[in-house]
Amino acid sequence: MAKAPILTPQADNFPQWYQDVLAKAELAENGPVRGTMVIRPYGYAIWERMQSEMDARIKTAGAANAYFPLFIPESYFHKEAEHVAGFSPELAVVTIGGGKDLEEPVVVRPTSEMVINSYFAKWIQSYRDLPLLLNQWANVVRWELRPRMFLRTTEFLWQEGHTAHASEADARSYARRILFEVYEDFMVKVLALPVFVGAKTARERFAGATFTYCLEGMMGDGKALQMGTSHELGQNFARAFDTTFLDENGERQLVWTTSWGTSTRMVGGLIMGHGDDKGLRVPPALAATQAVVLLVKDDDGAGDAAARLASELRAAGVRVELDARVATSFGRRATDWEIKGVPVRLEVGPRDLAEGNVTVVRRDTNEKRPVALDAVAAAIPALLDEIQQRLFDQALARRDANTIDVATVDEALEASATGFARLPWAAIGSSGEDRLGQAAVTVRCLQRADGGVPESEDEPDLVAIVGRSY
Amino acid sequence: MAKAPILTPQADNFPQWYQDVLAKAELAENGPVRGTMVIRPYGYAIWERMQSEMDARIKTAGAANAYFPLFIPESYFHKEAEHVAGFSPELAVVTIGGGKDLEEPVVVRPTSEMVINSYFAKWIQSYRDLPLLLNQWANVVRWELRPRMFLRTTEFLWQEGHTAHASEADARSYARRILFEVYEDFMVKVLALPVFVGAKTARERFAGATFTYCLEGMMGDGKALQMGTSHELGQNFARAFDTTFLDENGERQLVWTTSWGTSTRMVGGLIMGHGDDKGLRVPPALAATQAVVLLVKDDDGAGDAAARLASELRAAGVRVELDARVATSFGRRATDWEIKGVPVRLEVGPRDLAEGNVTVVRRDTNEKRPVALDAVAAAIPALLDEIQQRLFDQALARRDANTIDVATVDEALEASATGFARLPWAAIGSSGEDRLGQAAVTVRCLQRADGGVPESEDEPDLVAIVGRSY
Repeated sequence: MAKAPILTPQADNFPQWYQDVLAKAELAENGPVRGTMVIRPYGYAIWERMQSEMDARIKTAGAANAYFPLFIPESYFHKEAEHVAGFSPELAVVTIGGGKDLEEPVVVRPTSEMVINSYFAKWIQSYRDLPLLLNQWANVVRWELRPRMFLRTTEFLWQEGHTAHASEADARSYARRILFEVYEDFMVKVLALPVFVGAKTARERFAGATFTYCLEGMMGDGKALQMGTSHELGQNFARAFDTTFLDENGERQLVWTTSWGTSTRMVGGLIMGHGDDKGLRVPPALAATQAVVLLVKDDDGAGDAAARLASELRAAGVRVELDARVATSFGRRATDWEIKGVPVRLEVGPRDLAEGNVTVVRRDTNEKRPVALDAVAAAIPALLDEIQQRLFDQALARRDANTIDVATVDEALEASATGFARLPWAAIGSSGEDRLGQAAVTVRCLQRADGGVPESEDEPDLVAIVGRSY
Repeated sequence: MAKAPILTPQADNFPQWYQDVLAKAELAENGPVRGTMVIRPYGYAIWERMQSEMDARIKTAGAANAYFPLFIPESYFHKEAEHVAGFSPELAVVTIGGGKDLEEPVVVRPTSEMVINSYFAKWIQSYRDLPLLLNQWANVVRWELRPRMFLRTTEFLWQEGHTAHASEADARSYARRILFEVYEDFMVKVLALPVFVGAKTARERFAGATFTYCLEGMMGDGKALQMGTSHELGQNFARAFDTTFLDENGERQLVWTTSWGTSTRMVGGLIMGHGDDKGLRVPPALAATQAVVLLVKDDDGAGDAAARLASELRAAGVRVELDARVATSFGRRATDWEIKGVPVRLEVGPRDLAEGNVTVVRRDTNEKRPVALDAVAAAIPALLDEIQQRLFDQALARRDANTIDVATVDEALEASATGFARLPWAAIGSSGEDRLGQAAVTVRCLQRADGGVPESEDEPDLVAIVGRSY
């Protein structure tokens, strides 16, 4: 009889597979308050690597990190009408502080436009103060009725960028720079996930934005995950806080602002974008542990050989871990590393060593092959590059196979059962968006015919990517 | 007439000097909700450097980062009697979520013992699961009646470590390891601040701890700042959550836990520990910007020379910034960098260059001297080391000069007016602690006669360090 699988197979029940991976790879657990989440060390190490790669790109794009308070006076939320309408139903409100009822309740930030724009108004006087480019790494809270770990949690971790500019053109150019140079670059090169980069329709825009750019990934079940967004906020928040500057001609003008964010939701995207029936598959560029040296049995010098190999790999620049816990069965440890999706396992045991070999196991293909011990360390960096590329190619091939060009809303609805549909935006329109919505299908993004990212919903010949989403 | 100083002189009004530095160095501002704080980019860059140095030491000590929820059910706080008594007056409580009154209010974490220990109870089954060593970087909230930026804020950023062990000896050894190898090492080697490392008296202990270790720095006004603490929690939290394990003999035992934390308060310690009348002085090992190349005027190739020098410094491993904003007056920019405490300024202008020199300004001594352009990049790393050492030596000399050995509580009270007093713990006792407390003076820590750190308040011949504190 075949052994029962450790994880529910994806084809049987994809949501259950996702929950199984979270538990078995020790990524996260539910928190004690509904909708909150405990991120366990292995899951947090993935988030730390995401932070590190993203943070470097954000700094290269010229934004500096700062930190604004968790608590925002409730009155601030009434300053921008669309923003408050969008966020009110999701707010957590502190009404008691230091044992007393507060005179004015404070909101636990769901996003920080309101507080950051109030400081922009203080800090910006002249065109010389612009652009002002800030980012923060923080937790935010949005009360979730249908929480799902990493994808939609009451509290989540994210970065939120907030910038102010002297002109609409400069604000737009920066919102797009973040979209391409920070977000797309990170998702493609590090996460190894192809994304459709485009713009949201008016109905799907961020509350308070004049235009929202987005990156949409396709998950293993054909559904879309919004991986990040970058917003032009026009002068909406500038007006709410009277954020003005003296331009070069000495005239007072309102600033133009942007905001942009990505969150721990990307961990969910990683799991569902690359995972298979054996567990997670972490792309080498992201992995905190790129290779594990797995000591099979500490006989005939295998322990020394394993330790030496780990050092050689470290010296070759590989993020490597040595697993010499021989008190735990080899099979169990191998399965654990497999579920955790470490890109390469190097199994070092007396039997292989007798022939001068170690066994190299690729997690992307699950192929095993013997490699000469004295050649293996040098070969791993190239193997990691190959795995990185293959994971991307595989995800891209799956996405392309499940993205179908269609002509009508009916056909789009049909295609959305298994993946994405692509059709002229003109064939949908407002009534088409209603019909899609009734089937829980949405326009994920608008693109130009050549795949480029539009600057307005009114550009001619736009194409809509349509799908079900998380 | 002499120019009015930019900052209130320390001798005139130390608290006002502190506020002036916060504002003029653009470190932080008050947040909109009382007691909260906006950390501006320059202040946050200091915190990021602290995080990076501390995080590496924490990982070397074997603890892994994780993340636990901001929201804790109110009922959890009633599980450990001393802990709830200590924290109840400071709690912020969310009573409304998603537009509805919550059935059970949730507390915004003031510290995470309660939630983390509840997971320890789930995750720990056997002695093989121990020690369990976790850390998190997070924000916490304690409602503050007398807030002061960085020192005591309603919301602050920190790291909090939480560990579980199979024996009291192992827990103690780990709490002390963090104290010495993470906290003291960081404070001495990176912050360049001497600290008295010792133990708190029973009255000054953390709520729920059986023993509290601490590190106390002396600020520029002779007052003490508690820079970090490491607690033995005995089996108090294990009992509250029934966290047990099967030992090697198959017997069920309660675990022993520790917790330990340092926070953005250390930024306050940095300001008040090293600052002078001209502003902040950041030790080179900590500084995000160790040297600034300041272009005086872009004439006669000075611009090129400055850019080249910045590259050379970067290549020599110096964290350098190029300030070529010649549209702003040189004097104003020089003063800004001085207030911000960047360790070394390299002023590059046509007059010096004509003689083949640049002017090197040390922020620790404010000495200026010409150095040959072609030798300066190579000389800076050693100069930074020298500045690091000198800042430590200066802080140590000031602390030693203001720490007086006395014999009685009366003498201790007198010495506390200007610095610390050191006297036999036996000369104070419980009634002496009362008398000190009436004058807002406290026992900052207990040490062994040789300066060593005791393991119990009952060790013979302990010495008390006494002072006023922030």
